[in-house]
Amino acid sequence: MSTADPEASPAAPSRVEASLAAPTFVEPRCTPTPAAEIERRLAAFQATLRALRIDAAVVVQNADLYYLAGTVQQSQLLVPADGEPVLFTRKTVARARAESPLSVEPLPSLRRLGELVVERCGDVPAVVGLELDVLPVAQFRRYESQLPGARFADIGPALVRQRAIKSPWEIARVAAAAALADEVFGRIPGLLREGLSEAAFAGLIEAEARALGHQGVIRMRAFNGEMFYGQLLSGSSGAVPSYLDTPLAGTGLSPAIAQGASFKAIGRGEPIVFDFVPVLDGYMADFTRIFSLGGLPEQLARAYECALRAQAAVAACARPGVACRVVYEAALAVARGDGLEDRFMGYGPAQVRFVGHGVGLELDELPVISPNDLLLEQGMVFALEPKFVFPGLGAIGIENTWTVTADGIERLTRAPEEIVVV
Amino acid sequence: MSTADPEASPAAPSRVEASLAAPTFVEPRCTPTPAAEIERRLAAFQATLRALRIDAAVVVQNADLYYLAGTVQQSQLLVPADGEPVLFTRKTVARARAESPLSVEPLPSLRRLGELVVERCGDVPAVVGLELDVLPVAQFRRYESQLPGARFADIGPALVRQRAIKSPWEIARVAAAAALADEVFGRIPGLLREGLSEAAFAGLIEAEARALGHQGVIRMRAFNGEMFYGQLLSGSSGAVPSYLDTPLAGTGLSPAIAQGASFKAIGRGEPIVFDFVPVLDGYMADFTRIFSLGGLPEQLARAYECALRAQAAVAACARPGVACRVVYEAALAVARGDGLEDRFMGYGPAQVRFVGHGVGLELDELPVISPNDLLLEQGMVFALEPKFVFPGLGAIGIENTWTVTADGIERLTRAPEEIVVV
Repeated sequence: MSTADPEASPAAPSRVEASLAAPTFVEPRCTPTPAAEIERRLAAFQATLRALRIDAAVVVQNADLYYLAGTVQQSQLLVPADGEPVLFTRKTVARARAESPLSVEPLPSLRRLGELVVERCGDVPAVVGLELDVLPVAQFRRYESQLPGARFADIGPALVRQRAIKSPWEIARVAAAAALADEVFGRIPGLLREGLSEAAFAGLIEAEARALGHQGVIRMRAFNGEMFYGQLLSGSSGAVPSYLDTPLAGTGLSPAIAQGASFKAIGRGEPIVFDFVPVLDGYMADFTRIFSLGGLPEQLARAYECALRAQAAVAACARPGVACRVVYEAALAVARGDGLEDRFMGYGPAQVRFVGHGVGLELDELPVISPNDLLLEQGMVFALEPKFVFPGLGAIGIENTWTVTADGIERLTRAPEEIVVV
Repeated sequence: MSTADPEASPAAPSRVEASLAAPTFVEPRCTPTPAAEIERRLAAFQATLRALRIDAAVVVQNADLYYLAGTVQQSQLLVPADGEPVLFTRKTVARARAESPLSVEPLPSLRRLGELVVERCGDVPAVVGLELDVLPVAQFRRYESQLPGARFADIGPALVRQRAIKSPWEIARVAAAAALADEVFGRIPGLLREGLSEAAFAGLIEAEARALGHQGVIRMRAFNGEMFYGQLLSGSSGAVPSYLDTPLAGTGLSPAIAQGASFKAIGRGEPIVFDFVPVLDGYMADFTRIFSLGGLPEQLARAYECALRAQAAVAACARPGVACRVVYEAALAVARGDGLEDRFMGYGPAQVRFVGHGVGLELDELPVISPNDLLLEQGMVFALEPKFVFPGLGAIGIENTWTVTADGIERLTRAPEEIVVV
C-alpha cells in the first residue's frame, strides 16, 4: 500500500510506527481471487449487460461484490456496459485497494453516488442494472432518487446464471472446501459419544472446522435464508420438518431458529446425520454422511443403499446438455423402484421436489436438480443429496458435491461413503 | 397436536407408530414466546397500523415473524388494522401450529395470497403495509401483482421502533443470553494458549457456547449484514478496519469474509479482544472483555481505564427521556478528556460515530447511541461498547448490555470487568 494512504500511515509516523501501523488486510494463508479471474468475470458480465441492453450496473450484494471485485468492503461496483468498472467504497478504502485489483474510489456517502455515476458515464444511464432479486425496496428507492430518469432492470438472475459456471480456479476453491469436509469427517469418530446433545456434538465438530479455517458465515441468496454449518441431527430429529426448502431440518434449539441441532441426546442405534457445509475463502461445498453408535435398523440400512444407487444413477446420466429434470428423475426412479418414493427428500407435506442444488459463493445457487429444464454445462458445481425420511426413526442418505466435466460429473467430496459405525 | 393432522400421523398408524411419528417441534428446554406476549405485541402493532392509516400489513421477515407470531415457519402474517391476524403458512403447517398461538392456515402458494387476503379483508386493502426496509424488490413486485390497486407503505421502521421497547419477559430473555456470555467468559482462561490461531481459539469458545444452547445464527436487519459470534481479535488484528459499521473488525480468514478471527497466532503481551454475541431463544446480548497472556503495554491499560470511565459516565446520565446524543457525548467527552478522541471507536477514516446499539432479536436494533435525537425509554436494551484502537498494537475496551429502567440503566452482562491476565 502507498504510504500516501491516510488509513495506512496517519500523521506521518516514524519508520517503526509505520511498520506497526500497516494492517494485515489480507490473511496470509488465504487464497485471494487472482486479477485474471476478476477480469474474465467482468468481461463476461459486461457482455451480458450489452446483450440485455443495460447501460450500466451497480452491484452491491456481498457475494456478487466478492465475485466481481474480490472484496466485500462496503462498496458500490459500477460496471458500465463498455469501459472500465470502478469500485466506489465507503468503508474501508485502503482495505478495498489491498483486496481488489479494480480501480477504487472513495464514496463519502451514498448521496453522492448519482453524481459519481454521471461523472463516469457522461450522463444518467438510460437503463441501470441492479440486483433487484436481493435489494430491499427502501434501498432501491434511494437509487431511484440518485439516478432520476433512469429505468432499472434486474441483473440478479443474470449474475446468478453467470456464477453457475465455475472456472477451473473456482472449482479448485470448492474442492478445497470439500477437502475441509473430508478432513472434519475423519475426526468425528474421536468426538462422538453417547449422551452428548446434538448441539454439544455440533460444537465440537465446528471447533475442528474453525481451526482449519472455516469462515463461519454461510451465504444464501434467498430472502430469509439462514444456515449454520449445516445440520447435525440424531434419530427422530432427522425427520422433524421445518420452514426450510430442504429435505431435512431438525427441531433446532427453539422456534426462533427452527432447524439444526437441538438439546436431544445422541443415543445408540439411531442414524446420526452429519450434514455439513464447509466454507473456505468464500467458496463452499455441501456434504452428508451417516454415523451411528451401534448398528441401524434394517429399514434404514436398506434406504441408505437406495440413496447410494440413486447417486450412482445420477452419476451415470449427468453430463453437459442433460436437463436437470432428467437428472432429478433418474434419482427419483431409483427411490420409486424401491417403494421409497413417499419418503424421498422428506415426508408428507414437507417433501421437497429437488435432489440437489448448486453451490459456490452461496448455498442456493444454480443448477437446482429438480423438474426444470436448465441444461447442465461443464463447470457447474452442485451438491447431490438423495435422502429418505422415516418419521420417528430419523433420516438417512448421502450428499456429495460434484462438478460437471466435459463428459460427466466428478466428485469433489472424497470421504468414504459407508455408514460409519462407532 | 391433533392426530387429525396429516403431518403428525400419516396413514393411520398404530398407537406405537403414532407416538414414534409425533415430531418434537418445540425443543423441550427452550423458552417459547407466551401467547400473552404475542397478543400484546399484535395489539400494539395494530394500533400503529390504525395511526398510520394502513389497512392491513403482511409480515414475512424471520425476526419480525418470530416477534409477532412466535414462529419463523415459511409464513405470511396478515395483520388487519382491526380484526384477527392470520398466519398463512406454506411450510410447515403442523409446526407453525405447534409453535404459534395464532390461527394458522395453509398457504399452498404465494400466488394464492391475494385471494386469501381479499377473503379475510373483504376487499383488496387500500393501503397495505410491508417490510419495505428488508423486502427485496423482486418479491415486492409479486405482492403488487397479488394485490392490484393497493398502495404499499413501509411498516419496517414502525416494527423496528416497537421492538426497541422490550417487555419484562423480553428483558429476561436478553438477560439469559447475557448469562450465557458470562458463563462462556468464565471458561476462557482454561482454553487460552499461546500460539493458538485466533480461529482455533474462537472455535474452542464457540463449542462451549453451542453446548450451552447458542443458536449460532445471529440475525441482522441491515442488507448485507453478517456476523459470526462476534470477533475474536488478538494484538494488531484488533486495529484492522473493514467494511462493518463497527469500531473493530479484524483481518478475518480471507477477503471473502473480511472480519473476525484470522489465522494469526495469539502471542504474549497483546490485548485479546473477546467480543461475543450470545443468542438464546432468538434473543441476543453483546459483550466484550479483554484477556492477555502476560501484561499489556501501559498505553493500552490506560485506555482501558478510560473505557471504564466512559461507561461510568453513560451509566450516570442514561435514563428515560435522555437523548441518545447526550449519552454518546458523555462517553466521547471522557475519551476527549484523556486525549484519546482520535482512537475512540476506531481510528482514522474507519472511526464510527456511535458507542452503542440496541440488541434484541437482531444485532442492529434501536436505540443507536450516536448523535441522534431519539429519547431513551424504559424497556430499551442496548450494548454500550467504548473501545479504543491503536494501529499496530490492537484494540481495547469494554462492552456490556444494559436495559433502561424507570430511573437509570441496569447492567445485564455481569461478568467482572477487569482485564483477565492468564
